[in-house]
Amino acid sequence: MTAVRAEAQGRSAEAKRALFARLAARFGMRFSVSQALREQHANTLTWLKREPPDAVLFAETEAEVSEIVTLCAEARLPVIPFGTGTSLEGHVNAPFGGLSLDLSRMNRILAVHEADLDCVVESGVTRKALNDHLRGSGLFFPVDPGADASLGGMAATRASGTNAVRYGTMRDAVLGLSAVLADGSVIATGGRARKSSAGYDLTRLLIGSEGTLGVITSLTLKLYGIPETILSAVCPFASIEGACNATIAALQMGLPLARIELADEVQIRACNAYSHLSLPEVPTLFLEFHGTPSSAREQVEAFAEIARAEGGGEYRWAERPEDRSKLWQARHDAYWAARGLKPGAEVLSTDVCVPISALAACVGATRQDIDRLGLLAPIVGHVGDGNFHVMPLIDPANQEERRKVQAFLDRLVERALACGGTCTGEHGVGQGKINYLVAEHGAGVQVMAAIKKALDPLNILNPGKIFALP
Amino acid sequence: MTAVRAEAQGRSAEAKRALFARLAARFGMRFSVSQALREQHANTLTWLKREPPDAVLFAETEAEVSEIVTLCAEARLPVIPFGTGTSLEGHVNAPFGGLSLDLSRMNRILAVHEADLDCVVESGVTRKALNDHLRGSGLFFPVDPGADASLGGMAATRASGTNAVRYGTMRDAVLGLSAVLADGSVIATGGRARKSSAGYDLTRLLIGSEGTLGVITSLTLKLYGIPETILSAVCPFASIEGACNATIAALQMGLPLARIELADEVQIRACNAYSHLSLPEVPTLFLEFHGTPSSAREQVEAFAEIARAEGGGEYRWAERPEDRSKLWQARHDAYWAARGLKPGAEVLSTDVCVPISALAACVGATRQDIDRLGLLAPIVGHVGDGNFHVMPLIDPANQEERRKVQAFLDRLVERALACGGTCTGEHGVGQGKINYLVAEHGAGVQVMAAIKKALDPLNILNPGKIFALP
Repeated sequence: MTAVRAEAQGRSAEAKRALFARLAARFGMRFSVSQALREQHANTLTWLKREPPDAVLFAETEAEVSEIVTLCAEARLPVIPFGTGTSLEGHVNAPFGGLSLDLSRMNRILAVHEADLDCVVESGVTRKALNDHLRGSGLFFPVDPGADASLGGMAATRASGTNAVRYGTMRDAVLGLSAVLADGSVIATGGRARKSSAGYDLTRLLIGSEGTLGVITSLTLKLYGIPETILSAVCPFASIEGACNATIAALQMGLPLARIELADEVQIRACNAYSHLSLPEVPTLFLEFHGTPSSAREQVEAFAEIARAEGGGEYRWAERPEDRSKLWQARHDAYWAARGLKPGAEVLSTDVCVPISALAACVGATRQDIDRLGLLAPIVGHVGDGNFHVMPLIDPANQEERRKVQAFLDRLVERALACGGTCTGEHGVGQGKINYLVAEHGAGVQVMAAIKKALDPLNILNPGKIFALP
Repeated sequence: MTAVRAEAQGRSAEAKRALFARLAARFGMRFSVSQALREQHANTLTWLKREPPDAVLFAETEAEVSEIVTLCAEARLPVIPFGTGTSLEGHVNAPFGGLSLDLSRMNRILAVHEADLDCVVESGVTRKALNDHLRGSGLFFPVDPGADASLGGMAATRASGTNAVRYGTMRDAVLGLSAVLADGSVIATGGRARKSSAGYDLTRLLIGSEGTLGVITSLTLKLYGIPETILSAVCPFASIEGACNATIAALQMGLPLARIELADEVQIRACNAYSHLSLPEVPTLFLEFHGTPSSAREQVEAFAEIARAEGGGEYRWAERPEDRSKLWQARHDAYWAARGLKPGAEVLSTDVCVPISALAACVGATRQDIDRLGLLAPIVGHVGDGNFHVMPLIDPANQEERRKVQAFLDRLVERALACGGTCTGEHGVGQGKINYLVAEHGAGVQVMAAIKKALDPLNILNPGKIFALP
């Protein structure tokens, strides 16, 4: 069901005007149709077309979210949940117009249960704000997608990042949540028990639903004790294969890697230039180990042996925070270093994820494709999960280059799917990967659509994302 | 929708006879209406009433499952998926009649991918058969609910067990699956990538759906490297509180416990009698540590210190398999020892799961309730998850005792829910916990029912489980 059909079902310019008058009266300055604010709430971090909403509203409570969704549903106006706007696949765009529902003011940390290693937060709390709050408790929240995203947004897109290999993704991090559904009703899923087999897993259904099934308003999250010792390491390899084989060997022997990141030679060259480093310009692994002093030490040494056997070069590791930062600087600066390769270019950050045995071949073929097309595109990977990012740098004015990149993206996903992988490991579908979803899941997409239709028959919640409903 | 309504929609004795004739012609000896076989396929391991199906059919391929479900749907006959029949909450009962679809012959291991630490199995493979097959590969499948259940059944009930604290539950163990839906269509969910954010998490929706949304036909499962060293330990405590506080302290410091099991004094008394042991009859923790020789040793020693601080008594540990078996014998024999407390009694095994900070109080109140009622009921718990089992021993002929036990079960769940827990940590809802599900999830149950209705409008798949649909 498209907005066109929604309009046919009753949405009209008149209904919208009346709704906006009502929202303005009810929410005052928290409701706005200002051009600047609407632009800010459109998509910013991708090469997808920016599609601003008709208005923006800052909600402060779950009850308000329920009220707003109910009113919008009555007027058949789409509601687009908004956290920090750091999505990469157009999730906050408003292709059919609608209200951007900004949740950033729902930023209360409602409880921290230290004995249970969990906390309850409103969905607008960002991951850094949560970790700042936890400082001193000895606990931390591990999921780290890079951006200081809202936890609600991270749940909605099933985000992960560099330490998913050890601590899992948002799928694993969330014990329960509350959400407002398309009819304005509020549900609480999961709970505070560590596990449950009580009925359908609505928690996991909402995680990764990208705002199309409900507006997440609060989350119960798993926390972890801060490890006594953290060691960082860096190791160059003669080839992507060597780096991948070392990773596989480490996982097979059960080494509890906290992070294992791959940067290819193009990324390392960019980092050398941007951060004034002199790393060997070859595929390089960046590692982190968590444990007791002796177990972390044992891990860092075990990996040294594995790396040697797989053709690794000079292996450096460190414990002091400032030394660790230095070792990882190239990885930390990767995004900005990539931008620096071609000033003025747009950066398209895309991701796929494959079985780790296929990673070296998949990255290699991708690199060949990039070179053949004459594109500039560093590759970095969360190699412990088989997840990698390609960042083509595009001249915005060059239409030919944009077409090339589109064809490149199509082949990238084809390659990932051909070896049993997925079109996105952590960025989500949004608008950018709708077509790939059908290639990946086939008839499963109809099942997803049936669920969407059952829970949001008017297609009010974030329409035009995940699938193009008929 | 009940079978009564299904009948109103066209199911008739005539349609059933025609269907059975067709199935007999098509599947020969693999289709049967024999009384003995039907009884075997009814529920056996609970105190719930046994409700045999009208017929049993042994499927051998996914295509057959699809064909059978399609034919049954046409005749409006319920289909009850059957693995090994080790469910505890009446999942394989046939309250509205129907066909028990036995998947035990779908027992092929389709692939083992050692480099990716995954495998693909048909859903009738049991967990022990899988681990036998993996012998020699250095890999194992960790989820261990006690019974040698089928992996499809374990997925369908979101099973877990003693080592979930380290390796997670079936929710975590399954990368993807294939299933036959109510209309006979086949979907493949997930994939072989370690993570994905490509669309709704249909894998997790089917895990724990107890056969009500689809018949699981194959699974892609995560495997783990067999740890180099396994150490086992046993420690008695003066109180449940002491044992629980030691567990909390170990989790907070990030000790990667592989198993941590609690048996209360009644269970230990039963074990002493049954297995001719002389353990102190007090709450006792049974532990297992996985790691390298030095990290496992470090863990076992770290726990010794924690236990001392929490009032633990003599702490014994061992490495050699035969010594480890001896240390854990009481835990291994717990079920049979419990039965031995009251020969001829029925054993009702129930479970709840609570935040671990509430565990000691919850177990304490449960013990008081048991004693007040004059029941005999050992308690064992997967204490690292806050999950515990109570096993009332019931005289089948004593109606008064049955009523008492029902009231006891109601209060057990009330107590778990009151502290943010769940009515079942790992046994599932089945028939036995339908009413509790509403108490636990409120409006969420309507969302579950809406999904069920969208995917199985005729209520063909395992009707009468999870919820009583109107």
